[in-house]
Amino acid sequence: MNLKQIAAERAAEYVQDGMKVGLGTGSTAYYAICRIGERVREGLNIQAVATSEASDKLAKEWGIPIVPFDQIGRLDLTIDGADEVDPEFNLIKGGGGALLREKIVAANSDKLIIVADGSKAVQKLGKFPLPVEVVPFASEWTFQALEKLGCHPEWRMDGDQRYLTDNGNLIADCRMEAIEHAAELNVQLNMLPGVVDNGLFINMADTVILAKDDGSIDERHRS
Amino acid sequence: MNLKQIAAERAAEYVQDGMKVGLGTGSTAYYAICRIGERVREGLNIQAVATSEASDKLAKEWGIPIVPFDQIGRLDLTIDGADEVDPEFNLIKGGGGALLREKIVAANSDKLIIVADGSKAVQKLGKFPLPVEVVPFASEWTFQALEKLGCHPEWRMDGDQRYLTDNGNLIADCRMEAIEHAAELNVQLNMLPGVVDNGLFINMADTVILAKDDGSIDERHRS
Repeated sequence: MNLKQIAAERAAEYVQDGMKVGLGTGSTAYYAICRIGERVREGLNIQAVATSEASDKLAKEWGIPIVPFDQIGRLDLTIDGADEVDPEFNLIKGGGGALLREKIVAANSDKLIIVADGSKAVQKLGKFPLPVEVVPFASEWTFQALEKLGCHPEWRMDGDQRYLTDNGNLIADCRMEAIEHAAELNVQLNMLPGVVDNGLFINMADTVILAKDDGSIDERHRS
Repeated sequence: MNLKQIAAERAAEYVQDGMKVGLGTGSTAYYAICRIGERVREGLNIQAVATSEASDKLAKEWGIPIVPFDQIGRLDLTIDGADEVDPEFNLIKGGGGALLREKIVAANSDKLIIVADGSKAVQKLGKFPLPVEVVPFASEWTFQALEKLGCHPEWRMDGDQRYLTDNGNLIADCRMEAIEHAAELNVQLNMLPGVVDNGLFINMADTVILAKDDGSIDERHRS
């Protein structure tokens, strides 16, 4: 069993009978879904939603009951991955392009558990390009506004076309190297007309479970 | 000539040769576009963009040169209407459903002139329902978050279907009667995952030209 899998299975133990659960996306969340699926086969009774089509499909294969978003109400728990985690549990997410779906699910969960390998832990966010979701209308103006904020945006591409999110929007990947004031930037970005949301998850994660290179699992809880 | 038309033509006089101009939408902006069109026929040389298909069409009929958004750069001036204007020049806009397009154009204009009839002037914003643009994904959660904020949302309908904006999103009309802290609410709304933007225009209008019931024109400039 690899380290990611050990960390993911640790997270899966937080799921309790009767819970409403958000299922994340990515290589570590994959293992969490599989472990939750095993527990469902053993008799665990939960309802779930997924942050991607891939996770939705995987969950259904395991027999995890997937419920429409408009019928489930608030979630007890979401288990998801992250592209970067800082010491205050702030995150960059959305490298996979689903930041809005992931942020909506996280915001509607009482508890957010992040599972990742140790390389995702950073002292300061920003080495990983921050995705910003932008409406197509007059998007060059929004791009220029991101440049003015010092974000060094680049349109995410899909071949020779601009990448489109599930919501029909564009993604500007912002290469800032180091984000000095993540909470302020989160507000500045979302207040730009034309920006739908961005990949900064501030004060959202409650528990971070990291699989470290030395073979240990680092589990921390936000106080 | 009716009062709205007098106010709109006053606004049209701000357009100068060589300017890049944003053309708004609605009954008062209609008169402004017509007057700008007359001036273009008399030799005024401008480039323009429009905040709606209707205004785009009207401008083209008058021979006003309409330029694609990605080719015009920053605008010198936008003339648009409003649903409410308070004494600090804060606005509610978007009753027509195009708040995002209108806000993006306004944000990219050096000067925003609002033209309206006097009934739009209020001491406090909020009697007019505040439109909030919401992504369809998990929209019931976003609706509940608006309820929690005390916004009294109602989905805007189009027959028996939910109204869809040009951007493929929903509109929640928020019936608050009186908005005590408009600038704070503007941030709170835009920070909700699932909210794209809202109809509060804070610190955006520079000049307000009101056609009052007593026959006078009230033109004020933000200091």
